[in-house]
Amino acid sequence: MSNYNVAPLERLVEQFEKMPGIGYKTAQRLAYYVLNMPKTEAKNFSEAIIEAHEKIHYCKVCCNLTDGDLCPVCRNEKRDKGIICVVETPRDAMAMEATDEYKGTYHVLHGAISPLNDVGPDDLKIKELIARLSENVSEVIMATNPTVEGDATAMYISRLLKPMGIKVTRLAYGIPVGGDLEYADQVTLARALEGRNEL
Amino acid sequence: MSNYNVAPLERLVEQFEKMPGIGYKTAQRLAYYVLNMPKTEAKNFSEAIIEAHEKIHYCKVCCNLTDGDLCPVCRNEKRDKGIICVVETPRDAMAMEATDEYKGTYHVLHGAISPLNDVGPDDLKIKELIARLSENVSEVIMATNPTVEGDATAMYISRLLKPMGIKVTRLAYGIPVGGDLEYADQVTLARALEGRNEL
Repeated sequence: MSNYNVAPLERLVEQFEKMPGIGYKTAQRLAYYVLNMPKTEAKNFSEAIIEAHEKIHYCKVCCNLTDGDLCPVCRNEKRDKGIICVVETPRDAMAMEATDEYKGTYHVLHGAISPLNDVGPDDLKIKELIARLSENVSEVIMATNPTVEGDATAMYISRLLKPMGIKVTRLAYGIPVGGDLEYADQVTLARALEGRNEL
Repeated sequence: MSNYNVAPLERLVEQFEKMPGIGYKTAQRLAYYVLNMPKTEAKNFSEAIIEAHEKIHYCKVCCNLTDGDLCPVCRNEKRDKGIICVVETPRDAMAMEATDEYKGTYHVLHGAISPLNDVGPDDLKIKELIARLSENVSEVIMATNPTVEGDATAMYISRLLKPMGIKVTRLAYGIPVGGDLEYADQVTLARALEGRNEL
């Protein structure tokens, strides 16, 4: 699109294009949307980016994102500090929160072990997890993703924790609720069979 | 997600969620992406928004977006100023540019007549179009969208221009290249038949 190049607009399109799942066309659409915003709104948007960057950091305990010292979960006295759910990203923790079922705390690793991407155990918040373990912790739930990397991470951490006498569990694999056996992949189905429960 | 609410993050998510085609989940993904950017990049992004807003305005002649007095097309001496292609949005002009076929100029209406959305002829850049017409203009191509609104706008403008003795044309309707007759809708197919050319 070199024929028609308005530099400040192109720069904005480029910024959007870098984002995950945003191609050139969508980036254009978003940039035009921003251009058509009222000036005050554009200012708010611009400031929200800077503000988020300046105010948000990791929770001292669980490494989740927060703008305070502790994250809302670690701050909450009603949450069971004896159970720690280990997740890869803050969004995974949010997904767990959305179930409204889990009353324990989290630990966010900020990634998973992935030799291909040059991510080793030391790049994750595993030291921080070990540091917060005490005799009050009764269970660590490995809720990393059901992928090769997530599984490897869960396995790695469980091997660290088990010798310390801590109960380590893993989220159940199986067919998703509302899913269709016909369309379930073989591995998932095999895992569902393996993990079958008595009725 | 009231259980887990980090205010600066939520504000950023809200900003993204307002954008067209962006739902809550995508907004979250984008906000986390922004959070994970290096600080300098976040600053660039934030500044790109403000910069685009401050520097970009309408071209004095064609109402397309530009950061100068005239847009790159109107500035370009090689473009045929005698042909004006009327489009609804700057992105439509960009799409035309991408064909690399059109050597005339543009006129951007910034919308289409739509009584349902309370957009009348006076809300569009029609006065600006009339104002730039001179005897040097040999043809005005109506390239508004092939929708009810786009058609109505094309019709409205052509009725204004024809009495002035200006040739007004409309982009051809027909089956898209690479399309399949079987899947073409009836109206499109009827228009393609109507507009058939001799081989």
